[in-house]
Amino acid sequence: MKNTILVVGSVALDSVQTRYGKIDRALGGSAVHFSMSASQFSPVKLVGVVGEDFPKPYKRFLKRRNICLKGLQVLPGKTFHWKGKYDRGLKNAITLATHLNVFERFKPSLSGEHAKCGVLFLANIDPDLQREVLNQMAKPRFVACDTMNYWISLKRKSLVKLLSKVNLLFVNEEEARQFTKEHNLIKAARIITKMGPQIVVIKRGDSGSMLFYDGEVIAMPAKPIEKVMDPTGAGDTFAGGFMGYLAASPDWRNFNTLKRAMAYGTVMSSFSVEDFSVKRVGRLSKSELNSRYDKFVRSLTV
Amino acid sequence: MKNTILVVGSVALDSVQTRYGKIDRALGGSAVHFSMSASQFSPVKLVGVVGEDFPKPYKRFLKRRNICLKGLQVLPGKTFHWKGKYDRGLKNAITLATHLNVFERFKPSLSGEHAKCGVLFLANIDPDLQREVLNQMAKPRFVACDTMNYWISLKRKSLVKLLSKVNLLFVNEEEARQFTKEHNLIKAARIITKMGPQIVVIKRGDSGSMLFYDGEVIAMPAKPIEKVMDPTGAGDTFAGGFMGYLAASPDWRNFNTLKRAMAYGTVMSSFSVEDFSVKRVGRLSKSELNSRYDKFVRSLTV
Repeated sequence: MKNTILVVGSVALDSVQTRYGKIDRALGGSAVHFSMSASQFSPVKLVGVVGEDFPKPYKRFLKRRNICLKGLQVLPGKTFHWKGKYDRGLKNAITLATHLNVFERFKPSLSGEHAKCGVLFLANIDPDLQREVLNQMAKPRFVACDTMNYWISLKRKSLVKLLSKVNLLFVNEEEARQFTKEHNLIKAARIITKMGPQIVVIKRGDSGSMLFYDGEVIAMPAKPIEKVMDPTGAGDTFAGGFMGYLAASPDWRNFNTLKRAMAYGTVMSSFSVEDFSVKRVGRLSKSELNSRYDKFVRSLTV
Repeated sequence: MKNTILVVGSVALDSVQTRYGKIDRALGGSAVHFSMSASQFSPVKLVGVVGEDFPKPYKRFLKRRNICLKGLQVLPGKTFHWKGKYDRGLKNAITLATHLNVFERFKPSLSGEHAKCGVLFLANIDPDLQREVLNQMAKPRFVACDTMNYWISLKRKSLVKLLSKVNLLFVNEEEARQFTKEHNLIKAARIITKMGPQIVVIKRGDSGSMLFYDGEVIAMPAKPIEKVMDPTGAGDTFAGGFMGYLAASPDWRNFNTLKRAMAYGTVMSSFSVEDFSVKRVGRLSKSELNSRYDKFVRSLTV
């Protein structure tokens, strides 16, 4: 179980519109995007909640990707439903509707199997819940979490408590600034590091990502993509590739491992944006992944 | 003269205010920032114009950096004066005043020495003037140009004519979109490439840069900098490092050369933003440059 990743987060139905088309009630949610990506590298167990309306084909689809769904509760009511569209530049999401539905009553409780997972990813949910999950874990060797602007403003104290217990925080650029009240990302990451996480990964969309560890900064560009159809879930897909690779590696305290994790996260998210929902990652072959990874990594080498 | 760079562009006095301080009538202008950076790598000859008020110490300062000023005309009147400030994020410049002064009457005429330079950089000036300069050149082996939103809207046709005769265009991300009416930067670069330049370099500020050549795309992050004081001239400093390295290299049709040029451009611009005007680049030692370059390039290698 040392290399198995437990992910706790949202499982959703997404209705998304971009200039390239639209999709209704497609498979979405942070735990789904993360799992689809991470399972390319390591075994994944998902803990989440759906309603009675959650389509059986979606469950089959996830299981075929070797994602364990024993921890997916079904509650009376409807599945979390997000409806949104993107501006022309596909950078900013405009939320048209958020129906939390059964997700509002989500109380993650872990089985013995779950508690023994070696690696934990706390996707973006209420930091109180994230801490409850962490407290139920036996002795994970690596814990990472994500968060969002909503929790930063509404549950700051709880988030700060959580951070003292995690190894890594994934956060996007604007959230890092909001959280630390510091515009410069190196300074912002230093403030966060002092709160607990040894590693801070700042996600910057098509500007790439930055990793802070042991006083060093690594910047990596995004993989340039010509056909960006839907950016929904790109951040969780990045985290999935990163954590999936890390979970499969013997030692995370190693810059080469961390850089490879960043590169796998970058490449996975570059696939994810090429189609709606988890379609592109769903049909991704190992050889496509490796070939894009190799080419990307070669392009970085000066 | 094969490796000597001729640069034609503005020489200015800049009054700049950022949250870290301000500076009055400091040395500025695209040709100055470019030359200060390029002269770290290759001999540079500058063609520009100043007024009678241009301080002698500024001329001495440039000459000490091995920048030939034989082509710097002095006209009756005052030197081009730009006054601006930056927002908190140091991303967007707000122009408070632009006094073109003698720059309005700038008619670059090249001497025989100038015309024989092997490499030409046409900094951001009226594309009609850029073309006049190019027509005066004997047989440059490499020609690059820059431009800006103003010329893209006002002198589009002249700019398109110029592009058919250059090897490389430096352009920033928003200008590339404005010029091509295409949001995706890969598609935008392809449109530009069809107009003539074999190489397109898109400058993206703290999001790094992208280079397009021979159907390939190279993305490079910016060097993360903790102490950004003044971004004025960062783009020209990038172009200077890029072109300076390229001019010193035997063959520009080589991806490794082009990537090293990008990395030198990136590192030079990272120095430039650390102080006002050309102060930081002015006191830059070869060993500081090489040490930051080596560290940056190592950080990119996965």
